[in-house]
Amino acid sequence: MRIAAVVEYCGLAYAGWQRQDGAPTVQGMVEGALSAVADHPVTVHCAGRTDAGVHALHQVIHFDTEAERPPRGWMLGCNVHLPPDISLLWAGLPGEDFHARYSATGRSYRYVILNRSARPGLLRGRVAWECRPLDERRMAEAGAFLVGRHDFSAFRARECQAKSPVREVRRLEVRRSSDMIILDIEADGFLHHMVRNIAGVLMAAGMGKAPPEWAREVLESRDRAAGGVTAPAEGLYLAGITYPPRFGIPGPQAPVL
Amino acid sequence: MRIAAVVEYCGLAYAGWQRQDGAPTVQGMVEGALSAVADHPVTVHCAGRTDAGVHALHQVIHFDTEAERPPRGWMLGCNVHLPPDISLLWAGLPGEDFHARYSATGRSYRYVILNRSARPGLLRGRVAWECRPLDERRMAEAGAFLVGRHDFSAFRARECQAKSPVREVRRLEVRRSSDMIILDIEADGFLHHMVRNIAGVLMAAGMGKAPPEWAREVLESRDRAAGGVTAPAEGLYLAGITYPPRFGIPGPQAPVL
Repeated sequence: MRIAAVVEYCGLAYAGWQRQDGAPTVQGMVEGALSAVADHPVTVHCAGRTDAGVHALHQVIHFDTEAERPPRGWMLGCNVHLPPDISLLWAGLPGEDFHARYSATGRSYRYVILNRSARPGLLRGRVAWECRPLDERRMAEAGAFLVGRHDFSAFRARECQAKSPVREVRRLEVRRSSDMIILDIEADGFLHHMVRNIAGVLMAAGMGKAPPEWAREVLESRDRAAGGVTAPAEGLYLAGITYPPRFGIPGPQAPVL
Repeated sequence: MRIAAVVEYCGLAYAGWQRQDGAPTVQGMVEGALSAVADHPVTVHCAGRTDAGVHALHQVIHFDTEAERPPRGWMLGCNVHLPPDISLLWAGLPGEDFHARYSATGRSYRYVILNRSARPGLLRGRVAWECRPLDERRMAEAGAFLVGRHDFSAFRARECQAKSPVREVRRLEVRRSSDMIILDIEADGFLHHMVRNIAGVLMAAGMGKAPPEWAREVLESRDRAAGGVTAPAEGLYLAGITYPPRFGIPGPQAPVL
């Protein structure tokens, strides 16, 4: 039987999503908890692998099992076995043809920057920090050049394994909420480090190091070396995954942060 | 010279604000960092002592020093010596007659409840959790009975050392933001556990265990035993302190959470 689930986590304590030997990973924790509930080893597939230190408000996974449990039983049982910084929010039966990664039609990320002179305290590890003033209108202007279907080679990490560098950015919004800058970005999919590289270019525009048009120049160069720095992992949240409605996967709640 | 400062912290790792032997406290950390910057032992006074596990968005402190440093130097220097979950946001010269506690004319707290079936993951230790549905309108109705100048003996911890149980609640608002319930409360001052005891009564009303009018009954009883449970520390944030403008203490930023 194929089970789908929604998972939320704080990435601070983990070497990223993907299971690896000798390091705590979110996948390792989730598989351990589900295996305890299923009473047999469970392998999990996710919609979007997150890097070390990256958080998720709404990661979607699937796994196959012989164990018969009510969907709510998977949620409650799994949360007993998971560490306190990972929580399974929902479980359900999407049908045998559902695949957390390949059935997804859209993904959204949120990037959060604390923009003030003092470093983070309460939100350390949960926001990026920039002490120089950022103009969110200039950041939004820069971001507008990236919306649409483009070759995002200039925003792609060297280690990226995707076959094509073409992605369709469907929405890119930048807004300020008191001393936080919030960047929301939605696309059919993302290249490795794409959001953090976009955040780096937008921050350069926001602090006046470059004009907003520089984002278009970087994009058109298709050259990673032309882009700025990769913004830090701690500001990044996997915010939601979109599927065709027939699978019955719940949409994300409006994120609070 | 008297220096005032604004401090933000995550209370998770600390046995509360107040210095004590053998346990990490926020006061101990702040005094240690300021003493390193001042190059002499510094004693700090705060506007409102927070319990173990309680957070602060905007705690105000003062201390006396012979050291001559620019206000920004206190902020930057102190943050180098503070642990990453405490940050000094601002420092300034309020004048010799300023007292963080006695000059304050108002205090505000925020109480945050995650209201969903799955336990917290991303925000563990930073929100209270209630899996039964809460009706925020019933909670607001219950809260309205507490606004004004009252004897809050029924909402006061046994260990409370305040001389008078009378406080003036100036504002009490309850709102929902997706699966979070946010309770904002402002008063001239608070008794020990007062916000957490109010949150406990409001949650009982919100889940239908008691009618909203029960809050008035509890208040009028002046008997702690009549009130419900004390809501957990992790949902509580010291959100702001108000002073006469002549001291020049900055007001709090709009809290993001």
